Order: sequence, then C-alpha cells, then structure tokens
Amino acid sequence: MRDVAIIGIGMTDFGELWNDSLRDLFVKAALEAIADAGVDRVDSLVAGCMTPGLFTGQEHLGSLLADYLGQGPIPGTRVESACASGGLALRTGFMEVASGMSDVVLVGGVEKMTDVSGAQATYALATAADQDYEAFHGATFPGLYALIATAHMHKYGTKREDLAQVAVKNHDNGLLNPHAQYRMKITVDQVIHSVKVADPLNILDCSPITDGAAAVVLCPVEMAKKMKKKPVVKITATAHATDTAALHQREDITFLKSTAVAAQSALKMAGVKISDIDFAEVHDCFTIAEICILEAMGVVKRGQGGKATRDGLTARGGKFPVNPSGGLKSKGHPVGATGIAQIHEVVTQLRGEAGARQLKTARRGLAQNMGGSGGSAVVHILEVL
Amino acid sequence: MRDVAIIGIGMTDFGELWNDSLRDLFVKAALEAIADAGVDRVDSLVAGCMTPGLFTGQEHLGSLLADYLGQGPIPGTRVESACASGGLALRTGFMEVASGMSDVVLVGGVEKMTDVSGAQATYALATAADQDYEAFHGATFPGLYALIATAHMHKYGTKREDLAQVAVKNHDNGLLNPHAQYRMKITVDQVIHSVKVADPLNILDCSPITDGAAAVVLCPVEMAKKMKKKPVVKITATAHATDTAALHQREDITFLKSTAVAAQSALKMAGVKISDIDFAEVHDCFTIAEICILEAMGVVKRGQGGKATRDGLTARGGKFPVNPSGGLKSKGHPVGATGIAQIHEVVTQLRGEAGARQLKTARRGLAQNMGGSGGSAVVHILEVL
Repeated sequence: MRDVAIIGIGMTDFGELWNDSLRDLFVKAALEAIADAGVDRVDSLVAGCMTPGLFTGQEHLGSLLADYLGQGPIPGTRVESACASGGLALRTGFMEVASGMSDVVLVGGVEKMTDVSGAQATYALATAADQDYEAFHGATFPGLYALIATAHMHKYGTKREDLAQVAVKNHDNGLLNPHAQYRMKITVDQVIHSVKVADPLNILDCSPITDGAAAVVLCPVEMAKKMKKKPVVKITATAHATDTAALHQREDITFLKSTAVAAQSALKMAGVKISDIDFAEVHDCFTIAEICILEAMGVVKRGQGGKATRDGLTARGGKFPVNPSGGLKSKGHPVGATGIAQIHEVVTQLRGEAGARQLKTARRGLAQNMGGSGGSAVVHILEVL
Repeated sequence: MRDVAIIGIGMTDFGELWNDSLRDLFVKAALEAIADAGVDRVDSLVAGCMTPGLFTGQEHLGSLLADYLGQGPIPGTRVESACASGGLALRTGFMEVASGMSDVVLVGGVEKMTDVSGAQATYALATAADQDYEAFHGATFPGLYALIATAHMHKYGTKREDLAQVAVKNHDNGLLNPHAQYRMKITVDQVIHSVKVADPLNILDCSPITDGAAAVVLCPVEMAKKMKKKPVVKITATAHATDTAALHQREDITFLKSTAVAAQSALKMAGVKISDIDFAEVHDCFTIAEICILEAMGVVKRGQGGKATRDGLTARGGKFPVNPSGGLKSKGHPVGATGIAQIHEVVTQLRGEAGARQLKTARRGLAQNMGGSGGSAVVHILEVL
C-alpha cells in the first residue's frame, strides 16, 4: 500500500450562499485546492455529498463535477454516508492513491441545502435515519439527539450547562475563522434561553443549515516529497465503521459505537494512542454529540464528556483542543462538505497557517466525521512529516 | 496492487417486487453471494444505488445495509454514478481489495423503484441528467435518447428496424434467464407498433422500471486460489470515465465518449484488444444505446452498430454476443443494481453455469455500465484463470 499525502486544500465560505449553485461551490473549493497543491491536472475525482437529489434535483455528481472542473473524462466518483459523506470520500480517495490506480486525486465535499424550505431540509436530513422505523414515524435529527441527551443526563448526571458549554466553546473558536457561518460569541445563558427545538436541545445546541464545499488534493507521499512546497501532511490512518441506523436497536444510545470502532481502528493503523493526538475536529452536529464523541474515542471515560468540557479540556488552550475551526456549530454544516472541511482545518493547523486560532501544539491531528445519529463514522489521523 | 478475484455471486429476481423493501432486496442478493463464495464474514461492504432518497426516502445505505446483513460494524460505503452506480461500486470495491485495506469485500447494487408513481420515477431518473440545463426544462431520458437516435438515423442512415432488432435480440436472450423481468419473445413489427414514448422510441425500445439487487464477493486472487471451489474469476481491468452530463455540450451526441475512454483504458489495463473479448454485457437502457456502445467500444466502426445488429453479430450465436442475460431491456433495469447484475451474468457465463443461454466461448467477458445519457461509464473485463 502506498503512503498518501495531502498536498492542497481549499474551501468556500460556509453560509447561506444564494448566488452559488452546487456545482459553483464545488468548483470554487476544488480550484483553490488544486492551486494550493500546485498541480496542473488531477487523475480522478471523488465527491462526498449526502443527498443532492432531494436538495437540488441533481444526482450523477461525478459526471457533472468532473466536467465543470474542466477535468473530464477523468473518473468521477460520488460517495454517500449521510453527514459522513465527506470523510468517506477521503477514505475512498485514499484507497485510489494507495492502490496505485491514480496518482493525483481530488477529494471534495459539497452540499447545497438552502434551495429548499426548512421542512424540506428536515425531511431530506431525516433520510439519514432509518426510514421504516424512525423517519416515517416523524422522528427528526434534533429529536433523536434529544433522546441521546436526555439519556446521557439521566445516566451520568450531565448538566444542561455542560451541553451549552460545547456551543460556547465552539463559537469562541469560530469567531476566529473567516470561513465560519456564525462568527459570534455566545454565552451559556444565551444557549439555555434560546428557542426550544427538541427538549433539552435549543436552537443554539444545533448546527445550522448551510451551503458550502471543501476540497483536498491527494498524491503518494513519495511524489509529495519531491514537490517540497509546503510541509508534507501524511494521512497516517483512515477508518470507517457502522452501527445500526436506528437508535432503538442499540444497547446504549449514549455510546457511539461506530465512532469507538473507527477511532480504535485508526489509532491502530497509525500506531499511536489517543493521548498522542494533539487536537481533533469532531462532528458536533448537536452539543450532546461532541460530549458522546469524546467518550467514544477514549479521550475521557464514559460519562465524563460533559465534565471535561466544563473543565476546559477541549478549549483552544486546553490539553486536548477540540474543534478549533468552530466545529459544525459555529462554522456551519453543509452535510456532505463537513468531513472535508474538518480535514481542511486539521491541515491548516498542522501547517501552522491557522492565524489567530492557531494551536500551540499541532503535529498530529484527528478528524471524526459521523453519519446520522452515529450509524456511520469515519476517523482520519494526519501528521506533518 | 493486489490482483482481485470474484468468488461469489448472487441476485434477486428482477421485477415489480412489492413484497420486498430496499433492504430486503439487498440482503437477499448479498446472502446468496456470500453463500456462493463460501465465506463466513465480509470485511467491508460497498453498495451502488442511484437515488434511494427520491425512490424510498432512505439515504445512509452503508449503515443500514451493513446492519441488516448482520455484518456491522464493518465499513459500509455507498457510491453513486446514476445508472452506473453498480459498476462504480465494483471499481470502488476493487480498489479496497487491491490496496490491501480489506480482504473480503461484498459489492452490491440495489434499487427499489416501484414504490413511487411513474411520474415520480421519471423525475427521480432525470436527476441523472443536467438539472439546470436539461431536467428542469422538461427533458426526460426517453427524450434525450430519442435525440441521440434521431441524430444517429440522420447521420448514418440507421433504420428504425435496426433499433427494434436490439430489443428483439435481447428478449430472445432474456427468455432463457429465470431472473428476467420480461421473459417474452417479441418481433420487430411489435416494437415498431408499440406505444410511442418519445419519437422514434416506443415502449419496446425502453428498459423498464424495476426492483432488484445483485451482489458479488471479492478477495485477493491469491486467497481465491486457495479456496479451489469454483473456477477463479479475475478482474483483469476496471475503468471509469466521464463526459458532460448534458447532451448539448457534446461535439457529437451519437458518440459515447465516456464509454470509448473507459473501454480503451480497460483494454489497456487488461493488455488485450476488443477482438480478444468473447462476449459483453452492455447498458441497453434504450435500443439506440446498445448501437452507440458497440461503436464507442470499437466493436464496429462508427455508424455501423445498427447494421451489425441487423446482421446478427451480437446475437447469442453471433461472433460477438452482446447481452446474453437479456440486457436491461428484457432482464429489467433496477438502476443501481444493473452494473452488478451485468457482472453476475459475465461470471455465470465464465463459469459455464448459464444453462440454456450458455455461450459456446466464454473465457473473457466485458461489462459496460453507463450513467445518464453517457455522462459516465464504467467498463470491467473478467477472465477465468
């Protein structure tokens, strides 16, 4: 298996981008990544996107995007794993380079979500849940994560304020990210008194509906070393795991098994322990998610995610900074793009190019991207060579 | 790169399967493939499906199908390239084995199309066209292929009867396939006098709306040789190429560039010429498509596809048998499943297990799977070792 490097990154601003179509967004991010990589062509393209059919009436993205990028007739693959589509695209592109099938592979993530009404978006997102057992009966993602939050609070004594602190911390970070959708400071009190969505989750516990795209360029590490333009960032691990799509089939809904399995696999592949990781971008689609992810990845013991957040472990200056980009909560969550936007932030930090939000120690970073209520998870570990 | 073998195959009947949901169909085909392979577990799953969101309200198939197959928490990847989703899934699974990431990979294709109305199905399928420049303005796939047929008849003198002969030949084959949706003999006269869909294409020129699934099990050739249960079938080439999604952007709408590029790449990878191929399964979504595919792959010269069909080149007893399974026309076309169903037929023929439709010479077979009006194409070449 060939070692794989990331040699270029790009992303659009995240937000309600009414002047940009799905293809515009993807091409903007892709061209930035290609320019950053300093390559003059790509051999193949992989795009992560959750449900362009329901959001925009457009499937067949491989064909469309390869063409609009001016790179046809190269192979154009679209992959989907709900909100983990971006992370899964990176794993797919990794294998394309690792196997020797292609040398220079563009991997992008994109979602155009604001062309439909709020109700239509809620329906589209609910297709990541189990249609027969959850979505059809009216379950929505805020509702499903509210169940998880309630169970976590009941089982472990997690406080309402702990949930709110996740959002406060991520907004503190997003304030410093020029690409973020919501660059504003918020307080625990504001979160707790914001509009109720699904008890105990309020609007400020939820990541927003967002348009956006992000892209990276991959090539073999040996090729990247010859370029010598930037510090070479190596993908030392890629791992993907699944769990039941439906919550009711799980032994313990507070435990994200797919994240636990993917993190263990990734740490094994990279040959490191979780304590060797300097920082992480994780899938905080709802505040409770970040707490459960900390526990599933073994950053803290089960039940301790809320307390750890309260104690500042995951703050920018903490021992294990989480979501220095602002996370899904502040940066925005164009579902198919999120997994690649996480990689964009990890590479930016590893290169020391994160400006005001640059972490002191950033040699080895982790990205955790999740589909549905944890039905799938993808974990990557990146290192500066 | 490790060599990759197909060690197991399975498929459901194709048709209007009102008692089977999407997950039922996939699991049926997958369990048959796993039993045929004689393995007791799979390390990873790749599913090709075009638009489960629009057809059934369900995305996130990787999670759902890995679970219902009883194989979670293995990685579960869904790929999409419109009607070439099945072929693309095989290419993706190939790279997973070739790279060394996984040993035993289940690759399946599935589509559940009959839970929606005809109008909804037409809308869902049109998402494979360019939404902004074609679908939004009312273009449908019968309409787009009717443009291609009209241009081909005008440019090359292809006859209405030549189109009809593709359907007649494929029904002759499908009559012998117990999995086929329409097992009935038809005549050129019946095709020409069947209900008009989009001039010059009638209902008997069009592949149907179908439910169904197909699956194969992959592993390294070295591992397959140790099993010694069946003749080992090796994937000697996999290639994917794109073209513009929209017809109006192409230099010549009668020439399927993505198929030409993918076929050339595949022949190069396998180290053979098109004349070395014994038979092929190709994407006859409309009768004109099969004619254009013969030309794009270099089986005949441009403009000669109609005449070659008329002369019997592609009949079961001809020099280059095409669609011995009955093709999309007679066997049915559950869009995401089609690419894997083609592989099912090629492997069945290579193993000599095709019964009444068994070809005399079947040592090296090709499968060509296409998305949209040729916006993408995937070509595989398989050989018995």
